[in-house]
Amino acid sequence: MWQYQNDALSADALLVGESLFTLANGYLGVRGCFEEGYGGDVQTIRGTYINGVYDIVPVTHPERLWGFVEKQDKQPNLVDLQSILVELDGEPVNIHVGEYTDYKRILDMEKGFSHRTFKYVTKYGKIASLTFKRLVSFEYREVFAQSVHIEYEGAIKVSSLMNTHVRNFTDHFDPRVSSEEMTLIEMDEIVGSENRHFAKFHTTHSGIDLACLSMHRTFSNASEVSRHQSHSSGGITEIFTASGQLELEKFNIFSDSLREADVEKHVNTIADALEGECFMSLLDHQHNHLQDFWNASDIKIEGNEKDQLSIRFNLYQLFQSVGRDQHSNISAKGLSGEGYEGHYFWDTEIYVLPTFQLNQKDIAKQLLLYRHKHIESARLRARELGHGRGVKFPWRTISGIECSAYFPAGTAQYHINGDIAHAFIQYYLYTEDKQFMLEYGGEVLLETALLWIDMGHFDEGKFKIDAVTGPDEYTAVVDNNYYTNALAKHSLEWTVKVCNMLLAYNQAETEKLFERLGVTQEDLQVMQRAGDQMYLPHDAELGIDMQDDRFLRKKIWDFDNTPQSHYPLLLHYHPLTLYRYQVLKQPDTVLAHFLLEDYTDYETMRRSYNYYEAITTHDSSLSPCVYGIMASRLGYKEKAYAYFGDSLKLDLENTHGNTKDGLHMANMAGTALSLIYGFAGLRVTEQGLKLRPWLPEAWKSLSFTINYRSRVILVTVSDTLQLEMIEGAPLTIEVEGEGHYLETKVFLPLKR
Amino acid sequence: MWQYQNDALSADALLVGESLFTLANGYLGVRGCFEEGYGGDVQTIRGTYINGVYDIVPVTHPERLWGFVEKQDKQPNLVDLQSILVELDGEPVNIHVGEYTDYKRILDMEKGFSHRTFKYVTKYGKIASLTFKRLVSFEYREVFAQSVHIEYEGAIKVSSLMNTHVRNFTDHFDPRVSSEEMTLIEMDEIVGSENRHFAKFHTTHSGIDLACLSMHRTFSNASEVSRHQSHSSGGITEIFTASGQLELEKFNIFSDSLREADVEKHVNTIADALEGECFMSLLDHQHNHLQDFWNASDIKIEGNEKDQLSIRFNLYQLFQSVGRDQHSNISAKGLSGEGYEGHYFWDTEIYVLPTFQLNQKDIAKQLLLYRHKHIESARLRARELGHGRGVKFPWRTISGIECSAYFPAGTAQYHINGDIAHAFIQYYLYTEDKQFMLEYGGEVLLETALLWIDMGHFDEGKFKIDAVTGPDEYTAVVDNNYYTNALAKHSLEWTVKVCNMLLAYNQAETEKLFERLGVTQEDLQVMQRAGDQMYLPHDAELGIDMQDDRFLRKKIWDFDNTPQSHYPLLLHYHPLTLYRYQVLKQPDTVLAHFLLEDYTDYETMRRSYNYYEAITTHDSSLSPCVYGIMASRLGYKEKAYAYFGDSLKLDLENTHGNTKDGLHMANMAGTALSLIYGFAGLRVTEQGLKLRPWLPEAWKSLSFTINYRSRVILVTVSDTLQLEMIEGAPLTIEVEGEGHYLETKVFLPLKR
Repeated sequence: MWQYQNDALSADALLVGESLFTLANGYLGVRGCFEEGYGGDVQTIRGTYINGVYDIVPVTHPERLWGFVEKQDKQPNLVDLQSILVELDGEPVNIHVGEYTDYKRILDMEKGFSHRTFKYVTKYGKIASLTFKRLVSFEYREVFAQSVHIEYEGAIKVSSLMNTHVRNFTDHFDPRVSSEEMTLIEMDEIVGSENRHFAKFHTTHSGIDLACLSMHRTFSNASEVSRHQSHSSGGITEIFTASGQLELEKFNIFSDSLREADVEKHVNTIADALEGECFMSLLDHQHNHLQDFWNASDIKIEGNEKDQLSIRFNLYQLFQSVGRDQHSNISAKGLSGEGYEGHYFWDTEIYVLPTFQLNQKDIAKQLLLYRHKHIESARLRARELGHGRGVKFPWRTISGIECSAYFPAGTAQYHINGDIAHAFIQYYLYTEDKQFMLEYGGEVLLETALLWIDMGHFDEGKFKIDAVTGPDEYTAVVDNNYYTNALAKHSLEWTVKVCNMLLAYNQAETEKLFERLGVTQEDLQVMQRAGDQMYLPHDAELGIDMQDDRFLRKKIWDFDNTPQSHYPLLLHYHPLTLYRYQVLKQPDTVLAHFLLEDYTDYETMRRSYNYYEAITTHDSSLSPCVYGIMASRLGYKEKAYAYFGDSLKLDLENTHGNTKDGLHMANMAGTALSLIYGFAGLRVTEQGLKLRPWLPEAWKSLSFTINYRSRVILVTVSDTLQLEMIEGAPLTIEVEGEGHYLETKVFLPLKR
Repeated sequence: MWQYQNDALSADALLVGESLFTLANGYLGVRGCFEEGYGGDVQTIRGTYINGVYDIVPVTHPERLWGFVEKQDKQPNLVDLQSILVELDGEPVNIHVGEYTDYKRILDMEKGFSHRTFKYVTKYGKIASLTFKRLVSFEYREVFAQSVHIEYEGAIKVSSLMNTHVRNFTDHFDPRVSSEEMTLIEMDEIVGSENRHFAKFHTTHSGIDLACLSMHRTFSNASEVSRHQSHSSGGITEIFTASGQLELEKFNIFSDSLREADVEKHVNTIADALEGECFMSLLDHQHNHLQDFWNASDIKIEGNEKDQLSIRFNLYQLFQSVGRDQHSNISAKGLSGEGYEGHYFWDTEIYVLPTFQLNQKDIAKQLLLYRHKHIESARLRARELGHGRGVKFPWRTISGIECSAYFPAGTAQYHINGDIAHAFIQYYLYTEDKQFMLEYGGEVLLETALLWIDMGHFDEGKFKIDAVTGPDEYTAVVDNNYYTNALAKHSLEWTVKVCNMLLAYNQAETEKLFERLGVTQEDLQVMQRAGDQMYLPHDAELGIDMQDDRFLRKKIWDFDNTPQSHYPLLLHYHPLTLYRYQVLKQPDTVLAHFLLEDYTDYETMRRSYNYYEAITTHDSSLSPCVYGIMASRLGYKEKAYAYFGDSLKLDLENTHGNTKDGLHMANMAGTALSLIYGFAGLRVTEQGLKLRPWLPEAWKSLSFTINYRSRVILVTVSDTLQLEMIEGAPLTIEVEGEGHYLETKVFLPLKR
């Protein structure tokens, strides 16, 4: 189950397929567009992106208030190198215009490439056989390679493009994609030498230099291939003609000045290295890299092949999209589309990181380092927001600046600070990496904690935090959002713990850190007190934790009289309408219960779940997986599996209708979380690993590995729970609340 | 005390003077710019406006959500006809470049014109005497007339402009004025015939046709005047040359297609009528009109000439700016500037109308008719905002559409509905005009009441209203704002009362109205119940009414550590910062106590006043007068007089620093309210007129007239309270809670 096949060819399916067949390597991403185009007026978003590369565009507000963002990052669409047009006896090959048979398109997740074959019938009834393969290299992050193989008894003409006339996708009616057309890249130089087409360009406002280069190589048995070049204002076309058969390999290289001082030199260096490679040899590298990945990170499901394939698809897409260096993170849509303009959100810390924490420590670490790298921007933003101390991380960003133009559902989400702190704490719990905490984690924890004590206040013996928005954006700018307060409490408590740990670990350096940040013992005491006395709103009558101070006093949304066509509500109702009702876009208090279950009791969790689930629309793709995980926690097994199914098919079946704008990375991670933190019930706490496993009836087994403090542990849930210490020292693991000592292997009965 | 004199000539003073010396007649407004300009780089906002004429410009939001406004009205600056350049022996006369003596500038509020005289010293030491007079006619609303008189022993050259190169003022850094430069008018035709310069133009997007026309007439004793015309792309210049002496009259006429079918014909018709007039005859008309106005509306203060002059200045400016027909209202800055883009706000109903209600019934009625005329826009807006029934009046508008681009401090101010209803109710209380209520008031009351019952809900036995913003914009989108709920209660209760009254007055027509609006008896019952059970938040511990459900639980703003330069706070702090604190821009609960004192008790009012006043910044110009009025109510006499003084000098001394953008109409009205509703303590209630008069020590007397239900009553507060029935049937008036029968004249002791 390593091959995802999708042969749909409707106009809609092709556009969605561009996202699903995206190839990427964490640095470079190329949407799965057809080389030769579709023909007709089929819409395409022909995108190529580099993770972390941004342009900055001015933001104008019709009524600008103090501290409103004045500029915004946008991920530019780069020069198009994936286009390769085909003509047979002068007839352009376009599947939406001509006839075809035997169409097949596959994403091979074991070998790391996609291929597409079909037979094309010309208007004179002659039949050609075409195969397109492509990969984005895990070996050479700069490289996107293509292979085209055509067999046809007649004249074959192939035109390979370097197309510089590109732009970003816009939709005036959807707030989730860019609404204004802008030129995000400008060309500096386009040169076509014999073997290398080269273009130098830069992002329009941010001035990041970029280069790309294409190389071509042909193989032909039947006839000679003739070749010539054509130049235009739009770029360079390399034209190949042959008859009978043509095999073309095109290697495309991208570089950017965030990473390389001389982008022109760099693409040529890579090109030199590629002289010794062919498409097949690149495929070999892919396979090796992916073996390592799957060895560490595969999640095996026995008993349902579709579930197995789907979860692998999601893991694969996450692995393709996640940044591998401090310049990059993982955007809401990964490298697969332009939704949310390539911005990084809390999705990283709350959804994606827990997936990678599990067994891809290096990636997890890079994601955290990205945040630390941008702490100065967060510091400046905190000052802009009137905070004398601390940092305020941006709600959405690429370059580190706040890019949220609608603050009630953006900047107001102060929980981003808590989410990031939570991720650093989880990383520490997984790794016990004290040096990392000294160098990076401590600063992030202290600065976010300083912000909480700056913005909150003691009132009636409790520490309270006003005017924030929680994860549920259908309620905005409220006081004492449970989620925010719980995350703040966690962050404050752990900041003090980590400081004490660091003082023991390296007093001198820790004191230097305190000094640099101006942190005093008194600050730590206030943090401790604020954490201890944090107000977590609770409604005694209903016996549930309250989303915020006022939430439960509002009218409940009239679901009965809301037509299905009015979802997602945000596209059909004014924010003020939504704010007036008890209605959730996505879990808020329930998400806090998942992350921090110790702050409440089981019965409160259960009642809260029942209450909030009934008024949640799941208009956010981040919603179902959390409800699924908590359904597992509460023993709602059918529900848990149903939510898992909803999450699993969200992109594969385009259930939100906007997969064309890119894959929903947080939801994809959510499917993995559903397995690990839901069905297997993993929690990584100060007391160590905890599991509460159960297995859906449809399955025979579920297994995955955990990397935990220099150990590799294989977890298999089947009729029993099987724990195997693959590597590392013995460990006591808590299962269903009871400790079990694991030296090599343990079998435990499964609670049914 | 009828002449306002201001001889300041600094660059700042000149710009502010343009607002202070604005001449207008409710239809046409011309800022008080110097005909000849200032010279140097002295800034000017050379504005001419017609009340109710708007362009519509597109609004783009960086993150557009459902129901965000997509277009916005803007008051266009019209063709400049006030410019008349002067040269003496070829030397341009500019007070900021050359030398001058004997400068004097006066606004004559009794005669209705302004005049400006000075002696100008040329670089050769020759002295000229110049006098400029101008008026905007109360007789011919379309007419702005100028008179220039120059005496100079040498060559005099006067160039009179029709300048079509105009634009609106913009300031990127102040949210209170327009930030984007746009072309709001486009020229269609410019024709210069011998005696009439004519231009036809239109508003760029809204397509309102406009025309203007200038006529010139000269008088010269010493020499012949020669005259010629010069045309350019920018317009027409009429050039006059003479020596020794030149007297020029320029009559400027404007018309618009909102009022006139053929604007070209109309300006010529007016021009024909003006052939029989001269500047002096126009002045005679002015005087007559103003005699009527002052007879009805003067407020006399004996004992402080400055106070007397200032209050007259304010009354005069209000009279100049207020619309006289259903196409127009009174914008935040009147016709004196471009702040808030010429929009009409709640300022009309809560500040300006109570001033005109008192003794200018026709004007008050027109202001209400304007709202009724735009009820269909309000109906559509309610639907956009998700309300199945009712109307939602725009927070700011000219043409009736919502123009607020920042909804938390705009659309969310649902109290605008209550404010408008309150004004209709007050009008009814003043006039007992049942026919008016049948034709207009009933519909407005019913539709706004329907909105309250649609948006609110019963909870814990109370009727509650969530997600609104009260008058204090430093707190936004809250639940159960006291002010909003109180106004809603008032509106609901009175809707039922008025319906019962109308059924008794004209059952058939009233039932037709119900039918047209789909109002049932059950609706009226719900209105009654919602009104009766309206939740008015109260804090038992502090013994004060709460601004909203959560307000008192927030941290109090750190006033001690806020530098003076950080006021107004809105220009120095992000809204989220402000929303986190107890800090008021302007009175909220205290304003409700002024309007609806029966909903609370004296001690609660007093404690609330003390509490809220201490945390109010008065960053809104609408603030001090209300605190002053309530200070009177509570017996804080020094405070009352101090606030009155602050209000009185706000524009005259430019204490808010932005009088250049126009006069603060609501504050100006507020100074009158301070006298009538504050010092004299007038309330107009269902039980009749009530007074609680007192007199500041500095004064000998305060007097004004009230028109009440076909009566004219003269109120004089001095050592005693003197009430005189000038006209109409006897009436019982409540003074300090005790009824007094007034047939002709009553003297009552003043409570000290």
